[in-house]
Formats: sequence, C-alpha cells, structure tokens
Amino acid sequence: MRILVTGAAGMIGRKLVARLARDGEVAGKPIAALDLHDIVAADLVSIADAETSVFVGDIASPDTVDMLVSRRPDVIFHLAGVVSGEAEANFDLGYRVNLDGTRMLFDAIRLADYRPRVVFTSSIAVFGAPFPDVIPDDFHPTPMTSYGTQKLIGEALLSDYTRRGFMDGIGIRLPTICVRPGKPNKAASGFFSGIIREPLNGQEAILPVPRSVVHTHASPRSAVGFLIRAAGIDGDLVGPRRNLNMPGVGVTVGEQIEALERVAGSNVVSLIREAPDEAVWSIVRNWPTRFEARRARELGFEAETSFDEIVKVYVEEELA
Amino acid sequence: MRILVTGAAGMIGRKLVARLARDGEVAGKPIAALDLHDIVAADLVSIADAETSVFVGDIASPDTVDMLVSRRPDVIFHLAGVVSGEAEANFDLGYRVNLDGTRMLFDAIRLADYRPRVVFTSSIAVFGAPFPDVIPDDFHPTPMTSYGTQKLIGEALLSDYTRRGFMDGIGIRLPTICVRPGKPNKAASGFFSGIIREPLNGQEAILPVPRSVVHTHASPRSAVGFLIRAAGIDGDLVGPRRNLNMPGVGVTVGEQIEALERVAGSNVVSLIREAPDEAVWSIVRNWPTRFEARRARELGFEAETSFDEIVKVYVEEELA
Ligand SMILES: NC(=O)c1ccc[n+]([C@@H]2O[C@H](COP(=O)([O-])OP(=O)(O)OC[C@H]3O[C@@H](n4cnc5c(N)ncnc54)[C@H](O)[C@@H]3O)[C@@H](O)[C@H]2O)c1
Ligand SMILES: NC(=O)c1ccc[n+]([C@@H]2O[C@H](COP(=O)([O-])OP(=O)(O)OC[C@H]3O[C@@H](n4cnc5c(N)ncnc54)[C@H](O)[C@@H]3O)[C@@H](O)[C@H]2O)c1
Repeated sequence: MRILVTGAAGMIGRKLVARLARDGEVAGKPIAALDLHDIVAADLVSIADAETSVFVGDIASPDTVDMLVSRRPDVIFHLAGVVSGEAEANFDLGYRVNLDGTRMLFDAIRLADYRPRVVFTSSIAVFGAPFPDVIPDDFHPTPMTSYGTQKLIGEALLSDYTRRGFMDGIGIRLPTICVRPGKPNKAASGFFSGIIREPLNGQEAILPVPRSVVHTHASPRSAVGFLIRAAGIDGDLVGPRRNLNMPGVGVTVGEQIEALERVAGSNVVSLIREAPDEAVWSIVRNWPTRFEARRARELGFEAETSFDEIVKVYVEEELA
Repeated sequence: MRILVTGAAGMIGRKLVARLARDGEVAGKPIAALDLHDIVAADLVSIADAETSVFVGDIASPDTVDMLVSRRPDVIFHLAGVVSGEAEANFDLGYRVNLDGTRMLFDAIRLADYRPRVVFTSSIAVFGAPFPDVIPDDFHPTPMTSYGTQKLIGEALLSDYTRRGFMDGIGIRLPTICVRPGKPNKAASGFFSGIIREPLNGQEAILPVPRSVVHTHASPRSAVGFLIRAAGIDGDLVGPRRNLNMPGVGVTVGEQIEALERVAGSNVVSLIREAPDEAVWSIVRNWPTRFEARRARELGFEAETSFDEIVKVYVEEELA
C-alpha cells in the first residue's frame, strides 16, 4: 500500500502518522510507501520496509497536488485545511485552501485515472441551528460558517467524484476532537479542551459558557481510529451516501468537569474559573449537540463511550 | 432598478425578459436598465424609459462577470447554466459553467462591495433517492448527478456569501418546468413535456415510463413568477436558509394525460404511444416525487394547482 497524508504536520495528522508507523499496515496490507505532505515540514517517521517521504508545499497549488498524485497512493488521507476561526477571519485563505485545495486534489486524482480510496476529514460544522435533541444521520446540512460551507462543498465533490468512478471517497464528519493537546488556541471551541488540558497541567482555565451546554466529543485517538476504519471499509457497504456523521460522547460541560474530577481529583477541577463570555456563548449556542451516528456505528466506527475515557486518553498520551 | 439576467436567451430567460418588459418594473420599482447576458445573443427588448443591452460572453470568464457586475445591477437573475444531461455527458463543461461560472459571478459581486439581490435558479436535482412520499422543506440534499452537485454547491456559496453580507441571495429550487416549448430535447425528463407538447402540435409522442410515475411540475409562467417574487421578497422574512423548494403540481403521468384529454380531447391523447424504455425509467425512478414547499408557499411563491392549468398555459402562450 502506498499512502499519502495531507496536513500531516497537524494535530490529527501527527497522531495518524504515529499510528501508521506503529501498525506498519493499513486495511491488512503492509505500507510500502508513506508520503507526508503539509505546508510546514511534518516529522519524518520510519517504517520497516517502507519508503517514507516528507513534502512541503501548498495543497492549493496544481503542481503540488499533481506531484503528490503522480506517486499513485492507494489511500489518501486528506486532512490539510484551514480551521474554522481562520476560515471565518480570512475569507480568501479559507476558500483557497479548503475549497480549491480539496478540488484540485480530487481533480488531480480524476485525471490520473486510477481509483484510490480518499478519506476526507469533514466536520459537524456542515450543520447549522436549529437542531433536534439528537441529530439524525440524514439531517440537512445548513452551515453557519465559511468553514462549514467549504467542508460541505468538499463532501459534495467527494460524492460526485465517487459516483462517477474517479475515486473511492469516504467523508468523515468529525465531532470536536477533545482533548486537543498543546497550547490554547483562539478557536471558539477551544475551551472544551482547555477546561480539561490546562487544569491537568496545573494551570487555570476559563469557562466562558454555562455548564448546561451540550456538545459531542471524541479523542484524537478515536479520530485516528475513524480515519483508519475509513481507509479499510468496503465502499459497497457504505453505498452512495459517502459522508458519515462520526460517533462521539455527547455531554454537558458540567459532565465534562465531573469526569475530570473523577479522573484527576477536585484540586485539578478547582483550577476552572467561570467567566461567562457573551461572544463565545453566541457562537456556541448555534453548535450541534448530540448525534445519532447510527450508520457510522453500524459500519464499525467506534468512539469512547464516556468522557472519563476521553480524559484518560489525554493523560495517557500526553502526560505519561 | 438596474437588472441583469444571465442565461437570458434560454427558455426561462426569454420568458422572464418578456415579463420584465411587460411589467416595466420589479418589486414596485421601475426598471432603469436591463442587461441581458448569454453565450448566444438574447433578443433585445425595449422598455419605456429604460436602457436595455445585450451582452454575449461566457459566464465562466472573470472579465465577463466583472464587466457585468461593474454596471452594478440591483437585481441579478442568474439563470445561465448547462442542463442536467449535458453536465453529466461533459464533466468539464458542467463544472466550468455551473460551478466556476456561478462562483465567479458571486465573487465579482463580493469584490464590487455592494449588496445586490441575487436570484439563483437551483433545482430539485439537489435531492437524491430514496424519498419519503412528500418531501419536506428540510429534506437533506444528496444529489445523484453532477448537475445536482453543481447546483448544491451554488446554493452553499449563495448562503455563505449572503450570511457574510456580500450579497442578498435567494436560491429557488425549481421543479421540472412543463410544458417546455420548442423542439423535443434529449433530456431524460423530456417526455414529461413531450407527451403534452407533441400531441397538441399534432405529432406522436413517446411515453417511456409507466403511467404511475409521480413528478412535480410548474409552468414556465410560474417559474417566471417565482423569479419575480424572489427578486422582491424581504430577505429578513426568508431568514438564513436562503434556498427554497418551489411549489408545483405533483401528479402521475397518468394524471398528466387525463388533464391533456380534458383540455384538448381524446384525439390528441391518442397520439401518445407507450414505449417503455428501461434506460429512461432507471433514471426517472430516482427522481423526487412530491414536495411540501410549505415555506415557499408561506412566502408567497405560487404555482398552478392542477395539471389542467399547466396544459392551458402552454396552449395560451404557445399555440394562441
Ligand atoms: N480537530 C477538530 O476538532 C476537527 C473537527 C472537525 C474536522 N477537523 C478537520 O480535520 C483535519 C485535521 O484537523 P487538525 O485538528 O489536525 O487541524 P490542524 O490545524 O492541526 O492541521 C491542519 C494541517 O493542515 C495544514 N495546512 C494548512 N494549510 C495548508 C495548505 N495550504 N497546504 C498544505 N497544508 C496546509 C496545516 O499546516 C496543519 O498542519 C482538518 O481538515 C480539520 O478541518 C478537525
Ligand atoms: N427548465 C427546467 O425544468 C429547470 C429546472 C430546474 C432548474 N432549471 C435551471 O433554470 C435555469 C434556466 O433553465 P432553462 O430551462 O431556461 O435552460 P436553458 O438551457 O434553456 O437556458 C440556459 C441558458 O444558459 C446559457 N448558457 C449556457 N452556458 C453558458 C455560458 N457558459 N455562459 C453564459 N450563458 C450560458 C444557454 O445559452 C442558455 O440560453 C438553468 O440554470 C437551469 O439549470 C431549469
């Protein structure tokens, strides 16, 4: 198997690459080549009997995608992208990377005339309020951000290019990936990870929204699991509807904090400071709450079943 | 009011232009300028006290759309497009005209930094089987053609560009427009019009599908009415969900034929010859049947209420 990962230097990308290096195989077949692409240099890994390469370039450049696709990867994990806050702040950048970059990649595949498995990281940001209590798999997408719009367009292209036989795509709509390791970032969703990560690192965390807010999370480990499952799944089993809501743990912020207390104790939890922020709240208010994700579960996509587990994954992977 | 119509030489475009010329106004305001654009020359019309112009060019050319938008039309009817069958047969052409052309137009508007009303003719082809008996307004779009995919992407861009304040868009999802005047064409949907039009013109018509097939239709006159309503509607009344399922008459093919018989007699109906065609049937089988179109009706979009009326519109407009 020849594998390409775009966005390989990103948070999920790194963890995917580590898992691929550990497994040495995808879908039961050994990895013969692993190409890592990002606009910044990804860390090179080594896999026994496999050629691994790092490429630095812009995914929204035809020459770059042509070069990447000319190496004929059997599985392409397309993770490169500009995140939600940045796509909203910088209109041109978001459309260029998330829409044009994705389309260029898909077109290069189409013109290369072979039929690789393409796993595309979409997002629950394709959905917009108002929502039912539990969001069914066939809920209609009405994005309320440019990022969500760009992901929806990527999904539509993926479906059509798959239907026409140019590629064999699977779009996975990731819930919020929590706990995001590393430094706090400015994403409106940042606090969902921050209220767990900062206290576990002995630092104060700000909680800008009411404890009653409900949201769905999966760990970075689960995100990687979804990607690996998507790489190996039989396309016929999925059928023509190629974009799937991923499972996750739907909890209130209060329940997140209770889980943290169970895992790490009340001293840790006391580092969370409530500081209601109307600006954050007005954004988060429009975010999806719980997902049914029935098709994905039936197709073997698995997430944690409690937020305690999500906290423990962070402790194991980042603090051990 | 300055008005731009793209696709002005097309079937709906011509009828829209005739109506604009007749009304001399849009949304209660007199027309000061009417720009007609198409890749073939549209017929020039004259309107008292208005400057009317015909432009020939490719909507998927940045220079063309910049020029059109630099004239700062207050209302833009964006009808230019490649139809379903052609977009399926010619992948590049469909994406270039229906996706790139629409995006270029929207981007020219964004960069011109004013906020015109943009009325975009989307299609029920954004939906894909399986369908419930009556398709609700919030049914999820899963197109099964490249044309439907391109329309869905146009809708997503329209919503996002409207949300960001670059334009004030309304997307109207037209049902099949029937009776389409003129020569038979090769569209899989052609027979829906053909079985009415050909007999009314003394010619034999082929019916390739069972009489039990259900489909939703509106006359070209209603299509123009939708466009005019969309041009004048208060955007705040529509809210953030800017793409609306239009109303129409949901009937079986058998009921279409009964209506024809009531309007034109049994001699006319005897010109319909049943010749089942598995290829056509396999396409039409996946098409939407009936629509609720509740939001559109509440917002004042009106269609015929019986297929008899649809037949009569054709007789009045084309055979009088
Ligand atoms: N983390 C989440 O909660 C979440 C949720 C839903 C979807 N996603 C999606 O999953 C994917 C990975 O997410 P992540 O959390 O690892 O994000 P990330 O920001 O950590 O990684 C994205 C990577 O893409 C790279 N990139 C940006 N512009 C590029 C360009 N022009 N060319 C090449 N590479 C470019 C960045 O350098 C970065 O390494 C993204 O597509 C993201 O939209 C993530
Ligand atoms: N007629 C229907 O049943 C129906 C149903 C749903 C949606 N629609 C949509 O409504 C619109 C009008 O439909 P119609 O039935 O009048 O179609 P039509 O084919 O009669 O008209 C489309 C017009 O677009 C023009 N065009 C094509 N490529 C162009 C380009 N590159 N640059 C500029 N102009 C170009 C064509 O010359 C044509 O005059 C289309 O967008 C169509 O997709 C129609």
